[in-house]
Formats: sequence, structure tokens, C-alpha cells
Amino acid sequence: MTNRRRFLIHAATACVLAFAGGVALAAEPLGSWNDGPSKARIIAFVEGVTHPGGKDFVAPADRIAVFDNDGTLWSEQPMYFQLAFAIDRAKVMVAKDPNLAKKPVIKAAAAGDMKALAAAGEKGLMELLALTHANTTTEEFAQIVRDWARTATHPTLKRRYTELTYAPMRDLLDYLRANGFKTYIVSGGGIEFLRVISEELYGVPPEQVVGSSIKTKYEVRNGQPVIVRLPEVDFIDDKAGKPVAIHKFIGKRPIAAFGNSDGDFEMLEWTTSAPGARLGVIVRHDDAAREFAYDRKSHFGRLARGLDEAPQRGWTVVSIRDDWKTVYQPLRP
Amino acid sequence: MTNRRRFLIHAATACVLAFAGGVALAAEPLGSWNDGPSKARIIAFVEGVTHPGGKDFVAPADRIAVFDNDGTLWSEQPMYFQLAFAIDRAKVMVAKDPNLAKKPVIKAAAAGDMKALAAAGEKGLMELLALTHANTTTEEFAQIVRDWARTATHPTLKRRYTELTYAPMRDLLDYLRANGFKTYIVSGGGIEFLRVISEELYGVPPEQVVGSSIKTKYEVRNGQPVIVRLPEVDFIDDKAGKPVAIHKFIGKRPIAAFGNSDGDFEMLEWTTSAPGARLGVIVRHDDAAREFAYDRKSHFGRLARGLDEAPQRGWTVVSIRDDWKTVYQPLRP
Repeated sequence: MTNRRRFLIHAATACVLAFAGGVALAAEPLGSWNDGPSKARIIAFVEGVTHPGGKDFVAPADRIAVFDNDGTLWSEQPMYFQLAFAIDRAKVMVAKDPNLAKKPVIKAAAAGDMKALAAAGEKGLMELLALTHANTTTEEFAQIVRDWARTATHPTLKRRYTELTYAPMRDLLDYLRANGFKTYIVSGGGIEFLRVISEELYGVPPEQVVGSSIKTKYEVRNGQPVIVRLPEVDFIDDKAGKPVAIHKFIGKRPIAAFGNSDGDFEMLEWTTSAPGARLGVIVRHDDAAREFAYDRKSHFGRLARGLDEAPQRGWTVVSIRDDWKTVYQPLRP
Repeated sequence: MTNRRRFLIHAATACVLAFAGGVALAAEPLGSWNDGPSKARIIAFVEGVTHPGGKDFVAPADRIAVFDNDGTLWSEQPMYFQLAFAIDRAKVMVAKDPNLAKKPVIKAAAAGDMKALAAAGEKGLMELLALTHANTTTEEFAQIVRDWARTATHPTLKRRYTELTYAPMRDLLDYLRANGFKTYIVSGGGIEFLRVISEELYGVPPEQVVGSSIKTKYEVRNGQPVIVRLPEVDFIDDKAGKPVAIHKFIGKRPIAAFGNSDGDFEMLEWTTSAPGARLGVIVRHDDAAREFAYDRKSHFGRLARGLDEAPQRGWTVVSIRDDWKTVYQPLRP
């Protein structure tokens, strides 16, 4: 087959898929959302920035949308899921090498002693993360996360963590992408942890995941190059770190930002204070029956300033209880 | 117009453009390259990884190609163009504030005293870069680079720096993208310097540029958030730093890498030592008549180990003299 012929066949296939996908999606955007002001605001924004010749039109290359992960795309109670991973990992590590339990924070984690873990404070937590997330190659670490994600189960909801993504937010990701947006995750969680699962859970490829990181080092072992994970923090992608990381990784200012806690405040502020149409959305956890209700009162994902300032900043506060038809739903096959 | 109707019109337009572009490109891939083993090797690789069902097939999402910039996509003699920018910037800064000339490295730069600059060594150079690249907001810095790029001219070739990109490499970028590759720049140069010009020069959007960086800080000034550039190195994207940065920014291992100096060695090593079809290419500067001839002998862009090990590693060494029909060519309008 000639190159030209091969190209035309590929292009034709791509066009057919684009039409089919477009028609299916256009049938009912945000089907898992209840009708109401939140859904209407999101749709009005998307229609505005995609309307050719309209006053709010934004070229596809600049349609950048950023999403926090914990509490915005999946649940974060009773603790960040990556912390559950660290605890599970400490158990495995101590089973292999009991000497590791000499470190109090590893001992507490391996014993599932949440009180002792909490007492270790932020410093102890960072130590736990460093010890359970480092000293492997990047490829080994990805495999460890992959294996964990396949089986690990939420303590009270009794489902796998990977089944605890929010169906309405996955709908929203699809809807934005169908309208030419590039969707990024900008998470306080670990970038290498998330990248292993982001494509399957959210359709977000690794290169569109931004997160906290530890340092790494390139080296050649027996003639084979590897990248080794070091027990040293590189960057914390939270609060004022989020706009800094967005600028570093993407190099463009987003036009839409989605968060749920005060850790996302600066990301929403940076996104929505530029001229032109901008969308800032906060997911509020107010549904104790179907998910969790906490906002101002939680250790993980505390939301106070965002709630206070949302009205004057024009940010949309999404109520899980009122705005979402459904919360969790199995991943489409 | 309904959403569905609007979507269909967009999709139709996109398809027409895709076909038109595809036909034009497929007519003669790499037209600015002479026929020979280098061109044949590149085309064979691309046909292999894009041939559905073939043993070397790679899914489009994994078709990642990384390009060094200085000496690979544009010239780098008699000095890195960004260093010329720093010198021009020092002149402007001293004209505004003569006190700045108290710093010897700024004085040398502002006077165009290359001997004194060289004597300042690497430490002096880093100081020059910090002073000329920091203490602005990111938006101010982008504007400074944009203004410089519009007018600054190469000292001996008497053309604007932006006219000194290599036409055969731009052809190659186009050819790879037409075959479903995502093309990244991975440069020792500054990420924020390059991002301002990468789209116009190479069709590479900001989010696909990786480079060296200084630290930045988010702050709110009179109610308006800004990101401020600090005079402190964050990351040097050179040598073993390149695979580290590729892993951090892209999170995938490339299947093709293009460089020209020993600063690119680890990037090529990392790219080509994974299983499956891989392409490693080194551009060799051996054309004193049309560009420059230097490889082993240059301070900027020294190539020695790469040249020695290319045969055993299966890397293709491109000769500018023999493999390129043309070197420079005006940007297409």
C-alpha cells in the first residue's frame, strides 16, 4: 500500500469515528447531571467558548481545562486513596523485611494504627510516603501501583478504589473533550501514582497528568538505563504550587478549573482572573447518604475559603446531593 | 444552530483539512532531504511503526518523538541563541539602570566583551542567565522574548535567528505528525524562552516543550495573580537530566529521539534501549559552506561520545552536507 493510500484510509476511519462519537455525545451532554443552575452554567460556558465568531470564542489550542483529583474526580474519605496505598505498601514491605518496623511511622502503618499515624504529624506522613514510594525504578513502581489498583478495596464502601470515580465528572471530561478541550489532572497526589491509572479511569493520558513528585535519577545498571525514585520530595503540587505547576507543565493559562478544597483555591483564582470567558467550579461534598458530607470540617479536602468567596468570584458550587443524578457508576467497558 | 449541527460542521471541516494536508504531505515525505541511507532509515522506521498489524506497529498514543533544539532544530554557533538574547537583554537593562554594570558579568555582556564573558566561566554564565531571565512576571518575560525574536539578527549569517531553523528538520516534524506522532522539544535551553517561539517555528505547542527552568512563585499583586520568575535554577535539562525530564513531563518512553551533541546522549540511550522499534538520530555539523562544521571541536554542542558509539548502538548519523538538500528556508506563511 502506498503511504498516501494508507494515510487516506486512516483519515477516513478517524472521520467516521469523529462523526459517530459526536452524534452520540451531542444527544445528551451531562446526562448524569440533574437539570439546574450548575449544569446550565457549565453548558453555557462550553457553548460560548466553542461558538465560532461569538464574543467568547476560544481557539481549540487554548481550551485547557484542569481538574483536581482527590475529592473532585474520585472520593477522598476516610483518607486520600494514595495514603491507603502507602499503608498497604508498608504492610507488604514489613512482611518482607521486619527490620523496617523499627521506624515508628512504618510500624504504625503496617499495624494499621491510624491513631499513631495521625500522631506522627505531617513530618511522619512525608516519611511514610518517601519510604513507601521510593527506592524502586519508575517501571517497578508503576507495576506496584497497577497491582494494588486491581485489588485494593475501600474500607467502608466495599468497592475497589478504582470504582469510586464520580460518573458525573467523567461525563464532564468527555463533554469537554468532545468540544475540543484538552483535559488535565492537576493533583496534590503523586504524579507517578496517578499516571498509572488516569487513562483507564478518566481517559486522561500520562502526559496530561500533573502532580506532586519526588526526585529521580537516571543511571545505567548492567548496560540497561533506568530511572530510580529517590526518597526526597521534588515538588508539592498543592495550593500556590498548582498554578506554578500548571505554568511549568502546560505553559498556558487554563480557561476552566475544577476543584473541591482550599488546596485548589489558587488554581481556580489563576484560571478565572484572566480576561475572557472563564469557568471555576467547586464540587461540594454535602451528600452523606450517597457519598460523604464534610466540606469545612474535614482533615482531608477542607473547603472553607472557597465556599466563602465563590459567590463574589463567580465560581459555581456544585452540590453532589442536588446536582448529580448518580455518584458512582461502573466504568464503561 | 443546534449543538449537534455545529459539531457536524466542525467535524466535516476538520476532515477536509486532514485530507488536504495528508495528500500534500504524502506526495513527497522529506522533500528537503537527499535520497540516501539516513532518509531511507527514517522512512522505514515510520512505515514500520505505523503499519497496522505489522510486527513493529506502535499505537498512536505511544508514538512519542523527542527533539533537542540547539544544533538539532536550529543553529547554535557562534553561541547558543539564548545566550545572544541574554547579552542583548543585559544591554537593555544597563541602559535603563547603569548601576547594574557593577556586576562584572553584566558589564562584560553589556559591552559585548566575549573574552571577559568566557573568563567568567560557568558560574558567571549562570549569574548572567539568572539576572537577565528573572525578576519579571512570566507574562512580561514572554513579551520580552517575543519582541527580541522579532528583530534580533545573527552576527555572521545576517538573518534573524528565527530564520535559522533547519528546513529538513521542520519537514521531519511535519512528517512525523502526519503519521500520528506527538512531537516534543527537549532542550537544554530555557523552557519559557522556547515556548514563546516553538509554535511558530516548529508547530510545537507550549505544552510539548520541555527545557531548563528557573524557580517561580505565585503571588497576588493588587488583587491580580501573577507568577514571578526567581533568580534561582530549578532544573538543568541536559545530559542525564533529559531522560529525567522526559519521564517527569511526558511520563512515557519515547520511540524516537533526535539530537546533535553529547548533551543528548542519555536521551538517545533511554529512547533506544527499550524493546521494539526505536529510532536514534544524531545531526552532525559537517557543512562549513552552508552552516558550520565542528562536532568534536566545539564549546557549544560538542559531539564525541555519540559519534564514537553511534554504530554499535544503531543510531543514524545525519550529515548536513550530504543528507540535506537545503539547510535554511523561510518559514511557510
